[in-house]
Amino acid sequence: RINSDRLWDSLMDMAKIGPGIAGGNNRQTLTDEDGEGRKLFQSWCEAAGLTMGVDEMGTMFFRREGTDPNALPVYVGSHLDTQPTGGKYDGVLGVLGGLEIIRSLDDLGIRTKHPIVVTNWTNEEGTRFVPAMLASGVFAGMLEQDWAYDRTDAKGKRFGDELVRIGWKGEEPVGARKMKAFFELHIEQGPILEDEGIDIGVVTHGQGLKWLQVTLTGKESHTGSTPMPKRRNAGLGMARVTELVHEIAMDYQPDAVGAIGHMDVYPNSRNIIAGRCVFTVDIRSPDKEVLDEMDARIRDGIATICETLEISAAVEQVGHFDPVAFDETCVKAVRDAADRLGYSHRNIVSGAGHDACWINRVAPTAMIFCPCVDGLSHNEAEEISKEWASAGCDVLFHAVVETAEI
Amino acid sequence: RINSDRLWDSLMDMAKIGPGIAGGNNRQTLTDEDGEGRKLFQSWCEAAGLTMGVDEMGTMFFRREGTDPNALPVYVGSHLDTQPTGGKYDGVLGVLGGLEIIRSLDDLGIRTKHPIVVTNWTNEEGTRFVPAMLASGVFAGMLEQDWAYDRTDAKGKRFGDELVRIGWKGEEPVGARKMKAFFELHIEQGPILEDEGIDIGVVTHGQGLKWLQVTLTGKESHTGSTPMPKRRNAGLGMARVTELVHEIAMDYQPDAVGAIGHMDVYPNSRNIIAGRCVFTVDIRSPDKEVLDEMDARIRDGIATICETLEISAAVEQVGHFDPVAFDETCVKAVRDAADRLGYSHRNIVSGAGHDACWINRVAPTAMIFCPCVDGLSHNEAEEISKEWASAGCDVLFHAVVETAEI
Ligand SMILES: NC(=O)NCCC(=O)O
Ligand SMILES: NC(=O)NCCC(=O)O
Repeated sequence: RINSDRLWDSLMDMAKIGPGIAGGNNRQTLTDEDGEGRKLFQSWCEAAGLTMGVDEMGTMFFRREGTDPNALPVYVGSHLDTQPTGGKYDGVLGVLGGLEIIRSLDDLGIRTKHPIVVTNWTNEEGTRFVPAMLASGVFAGMLEQDWAYDRTDAKGKRFGDELVRIGWKGEEPVGARKMKAFFELHIEQGPILEDEGIDIGVVTHGQGLKWLQVTLTGKESHTGSTPMPKRRNAGLGMARVTELVHEIAMDYQPDAVGAIGHMDVYPNSRNIIAGRCVFTVDIRSPDKEVLDEMDARIRDGIATICETLEISAAVEQVGHFDPVAFDETCVKAVRDAADRLGYSHRNIVSGAGHDACWINRVAPTAMIFCPCVDGLSHNEAEEISKEWASAGCDVLFHAVVETAEI
Repeated sequence: RINSDRLWDSLMDMAKIGPGIAGGNNRQTLTDEDGEGRKLFQSWCEAAGLTMGVDEMGTMFFRREGTDPNALPVYVGSHLDTQPTGGKYDGVLGVLGGLEIIRSLDDLGIRTKHPIVVTNWTNEEGTRFVPAMLASGVFAGMLEQDWAYDRTDAKGKRFGDELVRIGWKGEEPVGARKMKAFFELHIEQGPILEDEGIDIGVVTHGQGLKWLQVTLTGKESHTGSTPMPKRRNAGLGMARVTELVHEIAMDYQPDAVGAIGHMDVYPNSRNIIAGRCVFTVDIRSPDKEVLDEMDARIRDGIATICETLEISAAVEQVGHFDPVAFDETCVKAVRDAADRLGYSHRNIVSGAGHDACWINRVAPTAMIFCPCVDGLSHNEAEEISKEWASAGCDVLFHAVVETAEI
């Protein structure tokens, strides 16, 4: 078993970097805080004797040699970046859990046949630079590297420039590494495991996602003196699309979810009818057909809303991944590890996107979930117990060591 | 008649200060640009031999002496501040129209018995600092000066501090001046005059207004992994309130309007259910009972929406004025002037709030409207013709001179 105190201490030490305002973290990708977090992680990995590689997307790889120099490495990891109002565990647990299994192997004097590589993927969250899971998407050949460099944040700063600015643009070509397998430990970010009192989620599938960025254009005019029938109110349009997305998601739930979390109104003045609104629809389903149907219904609905309100719409897909089925052998390794360790477990579908969803396309991949309090994530109040974290990390340890062979 | 070329040139010169991005202006109150605009106006007034007074709210008064030193002055004016995406005429026409009648009196060598004072009221727009018509409200004794100083903008800057910073906090106590009458020339900001091909709106009444700032609090959580029934979505709540306000306004129109132009979503991330939304409801009616009924229905509706969505609401009234009936003698002076000059005219109700609405409580007051293209205002594309501007200014000239007596 891993050292749960050491794992917890590392989580708490990392959480000191980029503190939030309510007990969580604001360590968004390619900020100074992200750079600081990376340095701390590097110092820990180098103290554990690991060798660093950094690719052109800034993804960090720390390698522990295996006994067979020609054997393909087993990869573990997740991401250190957070939401603007993020928790201390989302992503971080999977990275520092990876480091913890290295430290535990060292404690036990165990050498594996296959090397083990601990990974920190750049820009998993997708908040500062859309889309999410950007670096793993490029690694898996699903997104273009130059296109990724050209993503801009809300202030117009380019991903590629910010990567250079914080000093983490590496030299290694992205996606060149071959993996025997990839394992990602993550908090569930939903309520199922806690509600059912289960220690471990054996993640068999991941939901698919679409992010549709919608720009509605109406006409700025005076809220007081513009007669109701003369208004071309983009804000009212956004409200109707928000309700539409909710209703469509309700039609398909529990096999789908949908919401709009990002909404910008221009010029955002109390006495000006909004002339323009920009917002992002987030829809997800484990069923690709459902996802496509929702997408079509939303686009139709937007067209109808715009016609009624005499406004116009532009819809751009800014994020997308299909539903994923993880690798059966890797999933079995996770389930067997939980069994062997005596942890209760159940199969589960990931509601969130993860780097593992992309990596699954280029290497056998699986994920391990541990519960989080009230299913809460993307909230500074995100919480887990030390016991949940160490159970998850124990399962990661066993699944990885079994796959890397002693 | 006034000199329409000179009036137009002054309008165009003022529009060079704080240019917008689409041909209009961004000269929001107490910004550096506001300070610059004030300096230019001061230089013009002093060149015309007027004496400046500035009160503790930063309102500027430029006085032309009358032949009777004891006669109460006739005031004219409006405001030089603009919306963030404002037009070149909203407010500015009334201030520079006031200056033009002084220049015309000088050209004609006319002395009036009563002094004439040209006024620029501070913060009419109410966008940077809520509420609108702040300085005229304090002048009329309807708002507290200390409370006004404590208003903060979106960045937390205080009105009182910003007034000092731009160097326009005067020494004169606010509201000390007594007026024989106040006349405000303004663009209609609505479509009626242009649609009917009429030169002059004789403003008999002004709509009442309420601004309700609503804070909805839900719970930030993950858009992907939070099951639909577990969501406490403040963004969905804001959408429903937006629709509610629209429906209620439609029930009462044409005797009411309603919309939400200001909406802030927190943390405004694509994959976080909004935990908090802050937005301002703007409802107006010329009928006080209708306004109160709308207010009550909106508050009830918000409570119902919140119950359904398991979110909570705080509603704060951040702006308010009752419907106004302007002074009959002053209104008649406007109508008579239009008749005398041969301009077509009709009675009209102001859809927007104006400094004149507050000043009407402490002095006999009237307003003159001229048409604007497509009724468009609070939009950089706001437009008027030189002919419309000069007709309005001619009427202002005659009404003021009649009231100030030759
Ligand atoms: N795990 C996680 O929160 N990833 C961010 C991308 C998403 O929204 O699913
Ligand atoms: N005239 C004008 O646009 N005033 C601003 C206050 C309001 O919203 O009515």
